[in-house]
Amino acid sequence: MLQSELTLRRDKIRSLMAQEGIEAALITCNVNLLYTYGRIVGGYLYLPLNAPARLFVKRPNTLKGEYVHPIRKPEQLPELLKENGLPIPAKLMLEGDELTYTEYTRLAACFPETTVVNGTPLIRRARCIKTEMEIEMFRRSGIAHTKAYEQIPSVYVSGMTDRQLSIEIERLMRLEGCLGIFRTFGQNMEIFMGSLLAGDNAMTPSPYDFALGGEGLDSSIPVGANGTLLQPGQSVMVDMGGNFYGYMGDMSRVFSIGKLPEKAYAAHQVCLDIQEAVIESSKPGAVCEDLYNMAIGMVTKAGFADYFMGVGQKAKFIGHGVGLEINETPILAPRMKQELEPGMVFALEPKIVLPGVGPLGIENSWVVTESGAEKLTPCEERIIDLRSGASQF
Amino acid sequence: MLQSELTLRRDKIRSLMAQEGIEAALITCNVNLLYTYGRIVGGYLYLPLNAPARLFVKRPNTLKGEYVHPIRKPEQLPELLKENGLPIPAKLMLEGDELTYTEYTRLAACFPETTVVNGTPLIRRARCIKTEMEIEMFRRSGIAHTKAYEQIPSVYVSGMTDRQLSIEIERLMRLEGCLGIFRTFGQNMEIFMGSLLAGDNAMTPSPYDFALGGEGLDSSIPVGANGTLLQPGQSVMVDMGGNFYGYMGDMSRVFSIGKLPEKAYAAHQVCLDIQEAVIESSKPGAVCEDLYNMAIGMVTKAGFADYFMGVGQKAKFIGHGVGLEINETPILAPRMKQELEPGMVFALEPKIVLPGVGPLGIENSWVVTESGAEKLTPCEERIIDLRSGASQF
Repeated sequence: MLQSELTLRRDKIRSLMAQEGIEAALITCNVNLLYTYGRIVGGYLYLPLNAPARLFVKRPNTLKGEYVHPIRKPEQLPELLKENGLPIPAKLMLEGDELTYTEYTRLAACFPETTVVNGTPLIRRARCIKTEMEIEMFRRSGIAHTKAYEQIPSVYVSGMTDRQLSIEIERLMRLEGCLGIFRTFGQNMEIFMGSLLAGDNAMTPSPYDFALGGEGLDSSIPVGANGTLLQPGQSVMVDMGGNFYGYMGDMSRVFSIGKLPEKAYAAHQVCLDIQEAVIESSKPGAVCEDLYNMAIGMVTKAGFADYFMGVGQKAKFIGHGVGLEINETPILAPRMKQELEPGMVFALEPKIVLPGVGPLGIENSWVVTESGAEKLTPCEERIIDLRSGASQF
Repeated sequence: MLQSELTLRRDKIRSLMAQEGIEAALITCNVNLLYTYGRIVGGYLYLPLNAPARLFVKRPNTLKGEYVHPIRKPEQLPELLKENGLPIPAKLMLEGDELTYTEYTRLAACFPETTVVNGTPLIRRARCIKTEMEIEMFRRSGIAHTKAYEQIPSVYVSGMTDRQLSIEIERLMRLEGCLGIFRTFGQNMEIFMGSLLAGDNAMTPSPYDFALGGEGLDSSIPVGANGTLLQPGQSVMVDMGGNFYGYMGDMSRVFSIGKLPEKAYAAHQVCLDIQEAVIESSKPGAVCEDLYNMAIGMVTKAGFADYFMGVGQKAKFIGHGVGLEINETPILAPRMKQELEPGMVFALEPKIVLPGVGPLGIENSWVVTESGAEKLTPCEERIIDLRSGASQF
């Protein structure tokens, strides 16, 4: 990665550090290393406020450079700083919402004279405003993601289960370059590549704070497809994570097996209308809770409120920031006073589940610009009938 | 899951708690909830030493039962315990090696009068000895895993890259029932489903403590296939995670594109010989470091020591416990004084990388029994020539 891009990112973090009097950051979690060093390593990026960043690396042992130093264990850090002419910081931040308790306390103990604070919220604040290069990665991801989705009708075979169709879509995603892993903030929200929800399975509540759940195939990963046989009159929602370059582009599309009841198309249109209205208002300065309330107002007026964002268990948001992880800030949810800013990238996902039919609605990823929001996932938004083949795209 | 199985598992944890004077455990990480409650939920399992376990659940909101109680936030725990006639514990354990610093300190703060200790090592010790039911899950996984690998020659097409072959194998694994997600202990060791390493890419060191690395396809996940064109004279190692029922069965097999140099077959045989000797000694009471040293002795005598377990950067183990996560105890490594016990399940993976050829060797999962070790991954161990089709199985 270009050094200028890394400097830009580090300086975004540094400017927030300066506001809080933090003299240095010690970064060791994968996504934050990826953000600040451009690749994942086993080791530590030490980021002082007023000096170049240094990498202290365990693995791989092949990395070299003026600011790269081998290390075996974190207890060497104070000595290595001294050897390189760097003072012990008076105030240091660690990744408190990401490191385990044991790792955090071990690192903090290496700096007994230092005030140690949780730096995760600050780093997430920096990561929330994407750079031009990051936005370009999202654009490219959206194109590859679209290419994969456009081939979905070609892999559908009558008599398939949701699981079988999901496997073929996973393969399409991988062939278009999807890296597969699905990164979330918070260790408990596990999912494989994404989800495919058919028919009433979309009503099954999950242990996670996803928009929709699904029973899953095993109690060890209770989310997504559950072996439902795909049958005429059902809708199918495909929501695969679009991680093609490290960035979790988010896009859902709805397919049908044959024709759906008219109510389903009406519900789908309500979601498209909500998307249009919310995006129309998604300008710098827009307040997240206002966007959420606008969606609730529209879906209530349309008579679908009971089926919006789940049935028995509802997700309490209509959108969320995306980036190196699927659940970044901002969050379009009640009581969220945060304002949109240029460079924020978020997924907007108004979704309705109709009992006896399945999931309807839409999800796209968007970047906030000075003048509005730009769509990053340019795929057909109508409900595509899997029985009619690929010609509808 | 059967209540008797859950009771058995909980009592294994309780007997270790009793030894350390711990009055209760509060369990909230996915694999530990899966182990002690039989499925993943959003919530907390409270496990007292001398009373039935209780589940305090946030999501899904559909779980009911005598010992199941809804909860919104952990700060309600002391009150909920009181309501259910349970005393505040004098000594409580939390998952200190798994919870984030923020989560751990938040939970600990709910019990201001309590001594809070890190319970992760204790739970891992309990999980290390598998129950009969868990061993049966491994046996079934090994059979499904083998079925997928046996179809590998049928998806090979001349002119493929390692990435393309990997995608077809991932699909075979999924069609045989693999759940896909690859669970590791420690948040930094990320991988998608497993790895496929062809030719010299197997020499590339990774940021993780895996037996072999690989460059990967993107700096955001630098491990595994890197786009190498599969060519005559190369070896290909397939090492996909065998997670069919939540248990991470581990199995590697080597394939070739046409015939390999004689030295490659010799190296492969050395690994098979090491496997045979180590397994012959893998009886209850065997010391892990002795098994490691035996392997090093054999590979040194055979003249392949420089290429064993990596080239420039070497893994310092030949085997590791497997279970709900890929890296459990015991670890077959230097200075590991732990003795094997009946019910332990481990992967043994003597591997050699030959420059100009690629990875050779073997990996199987084994369960320690009273009389020795039983193989859980019953797949052909010879090098299979991908150009000759599936008949070699």
